[in-house]
Amino acid sequence: MAAERWDGLLVGAQLATLDAIEGYGLVDAGALGWRDGRIVYAGAVEALPAPPDVLAHEVIDAGGDLVTPGLVDCHTHLVFAGSRAAEFEQRLMGASYEAIARAGGGIVSTVRATRAADAQALLAESLPRARALVADGATTLEVKSGYGLDFENERKMLRTARELGETLGIPVRTTFLGAHALPPEFAGDPDGYIDAVCDWLPRLHAEGLVDAVDAFCERIGFTAAQTRRVFEAARALGLPVKLHADQLSDGEGAALVAEFGGLSADHVEHTSEAGVRAMAAAGTVAVLLPGAFHVLRETTLPPIDAFREHGVPMAVATDCNPGTSPLLSLRQAMQLACTHFRLTPAEALLGATVHAARALGLDDRGALRPGLRADFVRWRVREPAALCYWLGGDLAASVHCSGRRVA
Amino acid sequence: MAAERWDGLLVGAQLATLDAIEGYGLVDAGALGWRDGRIVYAGAVEALPAPPDVLAHEVIDAGGDLVTPGLVDCHTHLVFAGSRAAEFEQRLMGASYEAIARAGGGIVSTVRATRAADAQALLAESLPRARALVADGATTLEVKSGYGLDFENERKMLRTARELGETLGIPVRTTFLGAHALPPEFAGDPDGYIDAVCDWLPRLHAEGLVDAVDAFCERIGFTAAQTRRVFEAARALGLPVKLHADQLSDGEGAALVAEFGGLSADHVEHTSEAGVRAMAAAGTVAVLLPGAFHVLRETTLPPIDAFREHGVPMAVATDCNPGTSPLLSLRQAMQLACTHFRLTPAEALLGATVHAARALGLDDRGALRPGLRADFVRWRVREPAALCYWLGGDLAASVHCSGRRVA
Ligand SMILES: [Zn+2]
Ligand SMILES: [Zn+2]
Repeated sequence: MAAERWDGLLVGAQLATLDAIEGYGLVDAGALGWRDGRIVYAGAVEALPAPPDVLAHEVIDAGGDLVTPGLVDCHTHLVFAGSRAAEFEQRLMGASYEAIARAGGGIVSTVRATRAADAQALLAESLPRARALVADGATTLEVKSGYGLDFENERKMLRTARELGETLGIPVRTTFLGAHALPPEFAGDPDGYIDAVCDWLPRLHAEGLVDAVDAFCERIGFTAAQTRRVFEAARALGLPVKLHADQLSDGEGAALVAEFGGLSADHVEHTSEAGVRAMAAAGTVAVLLPGAFHVLRETTLPPIDAFREHGVPMAVATDCNPGTSPLLSLRQAMQLACTHFRLTPAEALLGATVHAARALGLDDRGALRPGLRADFVRWRVREPAALCYWLGGDLAASVHCSGRRVA
Repeated sequence: MAAERWDGLLVGAQLATLDAIEGYGLVDAGALGWRDGRIVYAGAVEALPAPPDVLAHEVIDAGGDLVTPGLVDCHTHLVFAGSRAAEFEQRLMGASYEAIARAGGGIVSTVRATRAADAQALLAESLPRARALVADGATTLEVKSGYGLDFENERKMLRTARELGETLGIPVRTTFLGAHALPPEFAGDPDGYIDAVCDWLPRLHAEGLVDAVDAFCERIGFTAAQTRRVFEAARALGLPVKLHADQLSDGEGAALVAEFGGLSADHVEHTSEAGVRAMAAAGTVAVLLPGAFHVLRETTLPPIDAFREHGVPMAVATDCNPGTSPLLSLRQAMQLACTHFRLTPAEALLGATVHAARALGLDDRGALRPGLRADFVRWRVREPAALCYWLGGDLAASVHCSGRRVA
């Protein structure tokens, strides 16, 4: 069989393949070829099997620009309606969280606005956020429900998430987070609400709206026992789980999600050594969310050294949400991870690609290697560390998903 | 004389005029008119003296978008050559500042690269940084010299700064910062270097390259006595002064620059109560630089409450520089000022407009008021607080300088 010509070939790139035992897997004067949405070549220009224009329909000269895998934002709440900027301002003017909650602010206000928005309005409000993430290099987004908190509105959120992906031409992975907060109609009856969540899950899953299941396990969220019931409902459907774990206190959430072979434990600022060991044994990824840490001015760092020591992969995500992490750029989350958590730039970049993909249960992306999806970004810098170094700026020259340019 | 038609008129805007005793000076359903580069109207649409299309050649409907004065970045070092991302990475991998300096890193490496770059290369490297700042809302930039550290290279930097402004169509204010660091050829002879700086200053000024004079007064910089000599040379030419003051320790820099009636004392993390009083008496602006605070993980906050109490205006700037503040967005500096320094969003916005203009000695911009320059930004948000709330994203819908669109 004669080899078909490739769809595209990028030459003259500083490739960071992230396909190496450690570090960036840099290839100077690199080339990246793709066909039918998959990578067919990632290596040195000089090792190409034929001249570029013989190999591919389209040849692009990257002029020495850095090319990395497309970023994977593995933890967002970007589908919501309304604004919480006023609440941010009130806090800075001295209002307490309690006072804001009494005035109808906090997550309740986002639930109210999200319920009130029709599907079209919800899409229109969420689209600029997703577009901003893509414009700064994301080619896969995870989106959680959790501001609907009833069947119809959770469904509306998850459908909106899917529609975002179709609109932008990128894969969106949906996570059902019914157990995010207690809706007003279940006040005083969290167990009754968990019953409802466990009832909605199979129905939403039957519509193809659920790729994974999440919960907020915290003193101000749901208990370990309630979380366990949600996870059992997920397991009955063969759905993977992940967890908002140990953000504000050690609730042994990391160990719980590890017990269920979970994809990831997210936040994990207060996770104990035992929790880290359980994650290592289960292959559960630690998803670090430095945006919330930054905005809430937290001081307890996640156990980064313990994750390193036990070989727990660390992902980095935006946690894009209106209350605690108004981040519209995964690159800025990488900057914050380096600054606040002292991740190295290589760890931050692996955390926003390879390990983030793993936190979503995806093994077909996150690196530049033949056979993987042709998701990649050409950046207006030459060094990978520069991605974690600059705050602000428009660094992504072009963003490609399955070979197609999406930004 | 019959009234000439205005050049442009924006209607349906949420105007934040910043022309009020306190707060944003919000005008709902506002209109902004301009002619010959100056604002001729800033107020309610319904109070316009005639129908919009009768008043102006061009009428733009802002659709409810927020419109603010153009931002003023009053402290940058954005003209330089080379990259320090690798050094950022080395620090995160555990290298000490001393080890990096021994390996030829630190400011010395920027001086070396900036000296080696010809004027064209220096412009090409600096332009994307200035363009990024403008794209995120800046319509006036200050740029300091200080990486040349000899006559020809300081001159090259200042000329490049001017050329940036011409290229982008925005005003650039130049600050001579010869007393930034001791160049290798003057090792061991800081006083001899200050002699040279005082000799270069009138020559650079004669070429129209100097709008203000600055120095780095710090234990690791120049002494108060050396700074004083530079300031005296500036005073002899009628040039205003500003100072990198009290960033790492209280060197009584704020009081020194106030004694010279200086425009601003910048950084000021360690400024004493006496320094604050001296600034208040002299009308010297406190320029807060949260980017360096963030990147260096400093913990000593500037005396914000004392500035408030004594009525010292607080400006906010990027300090865009390769060593300690790789910031390409003044809006992100505002976010950091709110998060790290607990400025209110109103303080941060005033700090990036009205007070920043004052820190440059400019009274013709920074607010939306008839007679001032028609420098304004239309944002893809409705609330001013949203500018300080989001990290990342592309929020500036259009940026106008003297009425002309520049981004
Ligand atoms: Zn979250
Ligand atoms: Zn500076």
